[in-house]
Amino acid sequence: MPDPIVFSGGAHGAWKVRRQGAVKGAPLADVTHIERGATASADAAWTLSGVTSNLRYTSASEKRVLDATPSVLAKPAATRAALIPITKSAAWWALAQDERRAILEEQSHHVAIGSDYLGVVARQLVHCRDQPGARFDFLTWFEFAPADEGRFDELLAKLRATPEWTYIEHEVDIRLERA
Amino acid sequence: MPDPIVFSGGAHGAWKVRRQGAVKGAPLADVTHIERGATASADAAWTLSGVTSNLRYTSASEKRVLDATPSVLAKPAATRAALIPITKSAAWWALAQDERRAILEEQSHHVAIGSDYLGVVARQLVHCRDQPGARFDFLTWFEFAPADEGRFDELLAKLRATPEWTYIEHEVDIRLERA
Repeated sequence: MPDPIVFSGGAHGAWKVRRQGAVKGAPLADVTHIERGATASADAAWTLSGVTSNLRYTSASEKRVLDATPSVLAKPAATRAALIPITKSAAWWALAQDERRAILEEQSHHVAIGSDYLGVVARQLVHCRDQPGARFDFLTWFEFAPADEGRFDELLAKLRATPEWTYIEHEVDIRLERA
Repeated sequence: MPDPIVFSGGAHGAWKVRRQGAVKGAPLADVTHIERGATASADAAWTLSGVTSNLRYTSASEKRVLDATPSVLAKPAATRAALIPITKSAAWWALAQDERRAILEEQSHHVAIGSDYLGVVARQLVHCRDQPGARFDFLTWFEFAPADEGRFDELLAKLRATPEWTYIEHEVDIRLERA
């Protein structure tokens, strides 16, 4: 079942902001902490909410690879995290399913690149494009150990250099550590 | 952009219920009228809401066929309508994208069957699975002339006989006429 996930930015929360900024488009208002839960924090400066959902592009053979290394959040050693909200352009969403799949995987190798980092980066994809009034299409969430932040940056650099990323029109990058 | 759509069932509305019932699973409470709009009616007995969204399975070549006969709602001659909320099983949603596509089109010919009726049935697919607390995955809406209701029933009979439909675990069929 789809699971509601809410990120509340403000002065309190389980994650302390180390740095935040826009990669493309408008930034989010600066906050010192972020809470991630099923509902919004009462005193949040901003909230971003969505749901976990079914796979949209992954094939059965790719899914077998992903399922062999399940993404486990809240591992004790994973004291660093990143919240990267993104929005794709209207041109992306107007494409047919096979056109979007071809850009995402056959041209950009999104799933294949990500698969190389399953062991060091736990991730969660939160969908929000279909939530009325949403400011982003996706809220991407990653957890990793401090020693693996370099590898995480390497993953991001590879993805940001792909044809798929030319369709990203809004991207914010917030780096966190457990409070 | 995703467009919010709300169906409000109650004692008032632009569409009068001719008959309603469950095809599979629990029925919805009987109402005499349904209003379809961007927001809920104040006095509704029940509301079902979701959003229009991007295509999930349609290929570029299939999209060209669909785009050649755009679905136009609110045609004066289309005084009959059907609201058919459906929910697919957890087994469906756990499948990978290529497995769902294969069942939907290569095995069930969903898009191909639907294409034969584009001229007589205007349709809108409202997604609600990703709305927190939603009771259905989709709210499917169809408008047609009274003389074409037989053809619409033929379309439904063909779809309900497909492998795809074995994954439908909840389906309600509400037939309407303009009030």
